[in-house]
Amino acid sequence: MDSMRIGVLGTGIVGRTIGTKLVALGHEAIMGARSPDNETARAWAKENGARSGTFAEAAAFGSMVFNCTNGMASLAALDMAGAGNLEGKVLVDLSNPLDFSQGFPPTLSVSNTDSLGEAIQRAHPGARVVKTLNTMNCGVMVDPGRVPGRHSVFVSGNDAAAKQEVSDLLRAFGWRDIIDLGDIGTARGPEMILPLWLRLMRTLGHADFNFAVMRAENADDES
Amino acid sequence: MDSMRIGVLGTGIVGRTIGTKLVALGHEAIMGARSPDNETARAWAKENGARSGTFAEAAAFGSMVFNCTNGMASLAALDMAGAGNLEGKVLVDLSNPLDFSQGFPPTLSVSNTDSLGEAIQRAHPGARVVKTLNTMNCGVMVDPGRVPGRHSVFVSGNDAAAKQEVSDLLRAFGWRDIIDLGDIGTARGPEMILPLWLRLMRTLGHADFNFAVMRAENADDES
Repeated sequence: MDSMRIGVLGTGIVGRTIGTKLVALGHEAIMGARSPDNETARAWAKENGARSGTFAEAAAFGSMVFNCTNGMASLAALDMAGAGNLEGKVLVDLSNPLDFSQGFPPTLSVSNTDSLGEAIQRAHPGARVVKTLNTMNCGVMVDPGRVPGRHSVFVSGNDAAAKQEVSDLLRAFGWRDIIDLGDIGTARGPEMILPLWLRLMRTLGHADFNFAVMRAENADDES
Repeated sequence: MDSMRIGVLGTGIVGRTIGTKLVALGHEAIMGARSPDNETARAWAKENGARSGTFAEAAAFGSMVFNCTNGMASLAALDMAGAGNLEGKVLVDLSNPLDFSQGFPPTLSVSNTDSLGEAIQRAHPGARVVKTLNTMNCGVMVDPGRVPGRHSVFVSGNDAAAKQEVSDLLRAFGWRDIIDLGDIGTARGPEMILPLWLRLMRTLGHADFNFAVMRAENADDES
């Protein structure tokens, strides 16, 4: 896989984990934050021989942009990134609209008749949004082998070529069972799995698990 | 497992499939319908050497009652079954509040901040509601071996003994990975997985699949 220029929006554990994996795979990454002097982004950049900057700088740099911001703040962060900087870009949306304001369990701030993936696509019609990787812990996102057996990751988006690019990257992360659900409207399904995911995390006492879609088609094909 | 008296509410494919399996396992079942002369229920009863009757008759008969009615009509059906007939009973809720009035994909008539399982428990505080089996096709519910590998079924409910009784029955159906999510409030998770399930059915082109919660704890323990 050729080296790509990738903007990573968000300095939380998801952004840092994704950014580190992308650099390890030989891609050029800029971590974008609200402020150009975000200490977490600077420390991550220093440690990974990468760069940091604003959301806008990271988005402008990347041919692919990862939205790793908190789902409740993603639309605002992408506004700051700038529609022009996202135009024509593959925008990989990993976020979940989890509202923890009433404690655990959180609710979804958008669900059922809409999804955050769709809202992001509407807000940035020129971006090629692909929803993926939002259904597992970030450690599993970049290292599916942490969870035994063959398990699944979903992709949703309107642009087939964008989904192909993202799927190639997912394979580089180690994913084998990549399920294309359809257009960005199908992001509702993976986003609405979060309440079950969060309960399972509490029940199991850890986050090293993932959903697998078990079916005859892939039964003999070990990951 | 001792023979039980079980009321099966609902004459659709879910009710008939569950009822047939219960009879095959040696339980006594009455299929309940809105009307005492429902032709589908009568035909099922004749074919299975079982009985049919009203919702109220089926609920009164059972020590365990399966709600296999359409989720949009479940609260009304359980009203007809009668609170007194459900008092103290294990009420196994398989229903999903799928609203197809706007076509495919359906939305959930209740979700996110509530669930149908919780609504049923609130409407029938004397019943011991256990939400389960709502996350797969009815053919898989009673024959998990239709799907290869080890895959999962969830139980949610406030009454530990009721969940134990239901889990024993699930094991008799062939289930091995039975995950107790917690109280009836946790039913939101499995109900909200339906939008993803429905998309997967369309993507895969069949319903012989199921979710597995892959994790180290059960990796070496084949079903």
